[in-house]
Amino acid sequence: MSVTAPAGFEAAGIACGIKDGSAPDLALVATTDRRPVTTAGVFTTNLATAAPVQISREHLRDGRAAAVVLNSGNANAATGEQGRRDARRMCELTAAELGCETAGVLVCSTGLIGVQLPMDPIDAGIPKLAGSLGADVGAAGAAADAILTTDTVRKETVVAVPGHDAVIGGMAKGAAMLAPAMATMLAVLTTDAAVEPRALGDALRHAVDDSFNALIVDGCTSTNDTVLVLANGIADPPVEAHSPTFPGFVDALTAACTDLAAQMAADAEGATKRARVTVRGAGSTGDARLAARAVASSQLVQCSLNGGDPYWGRILSEVGASGAVFDPERVDLAYNGVVVCRDGIAADHDDAELARVMAGPEIDITCDLHQGAGHARVLCTDLSHAYIDENRRTS
Amino acid sequence: MSVTAPAGFEAAGIACGIKDGSAPDLALVATTDRRPVTTAGVFTTNLATAAPVQISREHLRDGRAAAVVLNSGNANAATGEQGRRDARRMCELTAAELGCETAGVLVCSTGLIGVQLPMDPIDAGIPKLAGSLGADVGAAGAAADAILTTDTVRKETVVAVPGHDAVIGGMAKGAAMLAPAMATMLAVLTTDAAVEPRALGDALRHAVDDSFNALIVDGCTSTNDTVLVLANGIADPPVEAHSPTFPGFVDALTAACTDLAAQMAADAEGATKRARVTVRGAGSTGDARLAARAVASSQLVQCSLNGGDPYWGRILSEVGASGAVFDPERVDLAYNGVVVCRDGIAADHDDAELARVMAGPEIDITCDLHQGAGHARVLCTDLSHAYIDENRRTS
Repeated sequence: MSVTAPAGFEAAGIACGIKDGSAPDLALVATTDRRPVTTAGVFTTNLATAAPVQISREHLRDGRAAAVVLNSGNANAATGEQGRRDARRMCELTAAELGCETAGVLVCSTGLIGVQLPMDPIDAGIPKLAGSLGADVGAAGAAADAILTTDTVRKETVVAVPGHDAVIGGMAKGAAMLAPAMATMLAVLTTDAAVEPRALGDALRHAVDDSFNALIVDGCTSTNDTVLVLANGIADPPVEAHSPTFPGFVDALTAACTDLAAQMAADAEGATKRARVTVRGAGSTGDARLAARAVASSQLVQCSLNGGDPYWGRILSEVGASGAVFDPERVDLAYNGVVVCRDGIAADHDDAELARVMAGPEIDITCDLHQGAGHARVLCTDLSHAYIDENRRTS
Repeated sequence: MSVTAPAGFEAAGIACGIKDGSAPDLALVATTDRRPVTTAGVFTTNLATAAPVQISREHLRDGRAAAVVLNSGNANAATGEQGRRDARRMCELTAAELGCETAGVLVCSTGLIGVQLPMDPIDAGIPKLAGSLGADVGAAGAAADAILTTDTVRKETVVAVPGHDAVIGGMAKGAAMLAPAMATMLAVLTTDAAVEPRALGDALRHAVDDSFNALIVDGCTSTNDTVLVLANGIADPPVEAHSPTFPGFVDALTAACTDLAAQMAADAEGATKRARVTVRGAGSTGDARLAARAVASSQLVQCSLNGGDPYWGRILSEVGASGAVFDPERVDLAYNGVVVCRDGIAADHDDAELARVMAGPEIDITCDLHQGAGHARVLCTDLSHAYIDENRRTS
């Protein structure tokens, strides 16, 4: 069901002709009554923000939205004033169809950077899109399909809010594990929980930090990254920050984002192996994150994963260069629990067991710095010939 | 001639058996009279420094050295107290052969991390190494050969100091463009110029900044990176900081380092294309460096280079995510002078000319931010199947 699982939301997805052929490329998520509801967003930190990010930020100033219109096949990034006009026009056309304010519509785009949006198919497509809104599984699936680029499967999730009648639904796109050719990750989440605006923003930032921000591991932050959550408040009681129900809502939203992030990892371009890099015992959470990201985004570590090579020296070197503060001679490193380095030097281990671990598709890299309680985890994949093949030409 | 080009220096290189087979793996550079001379060093900023880096830093506290002993085939990194004992022993053995103080000998290692040094071949090798010291071309070449790992050719340079009788010689190793399997860059430079200790340190830091630090572009800083320069002062007059001859010396040292860095770029693992990323018009030099390094180290940009794909959107996106402050709508981008983006959006250009540029082996990427006078240049290569093949297994 994804975004239509919570009561009060509809969705649609169609092929309007932005992409060649008949691939779906235009999606819509809207409140059933077309009224704006409490909405929070997290956007890319890239300075070269795409036009839709600029317009969505503007429209989200009041913390409310009635709909999100999304296209794939074109990022509407590096498109200047024309790009902003086009992004605004997508909102205007959608608002006209839905009978709501233009400022109540948010917009997301994903695809190639530097090419102006083809507005003819979008002008013709939006009325058709609005006309096909529905609350059924098929409508939600069509929306989830229409935002995909190099993804091979749609990404959807539904999570119940504990101790509450509300549910959270979500859809996402992004084979973005290693920042793909048409790098963008988009996610739209919906809930029928009643959440105060500030609490919703806090919850989303927390959820994104522990999910999508622990996934995009090569330092590439795209021009279009956007995560939105709409809360229509149909389910009672309201969730207030500091209320007893708030932690449960945050956990549920984090679980929804984590599920979508894991689906993105599973669909990462060209990947043959996935690794979970856990750094613990760091002097701070910040240091743990620095170290985990450095290891997970290292081309050399990713090459070792591709070859199933337990060359832990690269991991220690990346942690050393990460900026985290630690004593290299207190570090322990393990692959799936097989300790290969203790106190910063090689540790005796069972070679056969290690070879079995490294041959598998899922590898847990654990690095204990023995400095304090700082802890972080980042997902990554290997670097393969297929990744290069997918990204060496955009056309 | 490299390190024996300046008067008063000798060199040697042999195969002692650290590497399998008969590949050379032990090198020595020494003053002819075995007396310590003014010496400056730049070492890796990696926290997990290799044992030889720790010992060389200790021995260089007085700013003087008589010799540098180097081995390839093993990095002596992540080897703890035993590693430090072994690095010290390399200095002691060398000092005993040369008849100088142990603290007058510096030590460098390059190769696999996490494996203890095999000391038997080194113990037997050092007397043989010292016995083969010579000031001829062959001896310098043997030393340059003995420090190579995945390099395919030796790297040597000789530069005359302008307005002065002195020359600078140097040797280096590193197919390190993309941080190779046994990632380490080492360089030893010699000169018969008389340079005050502080001036020599300043000159070396400047030279390294503009050469080696503009080359290692994937953010990997190895555990062993070391650049050393020994100045024996045989040639007159002395070069003092603030003296009229100092800028000429700095330029010559920078030219020597730049030449070695270019040779490393030309020998980079698996590379089929080389690119020079120039960022100009940045608000500061720091911003220009951030932006240039972000573009040059981007896996996606490197994939585009591999495919000869002029997808400039990735360049703009990397600059946007680099941390440099700029207005994306004032950015111009060009490949070998063919402007593909002006004021942040696509610019009309000659497709045939651009295709010719992208098909070539050398690509100049220019990015003008139109913010100020900040300028930086970084060399990089493409990301190829061969790079992965070279780095997926260490054995």
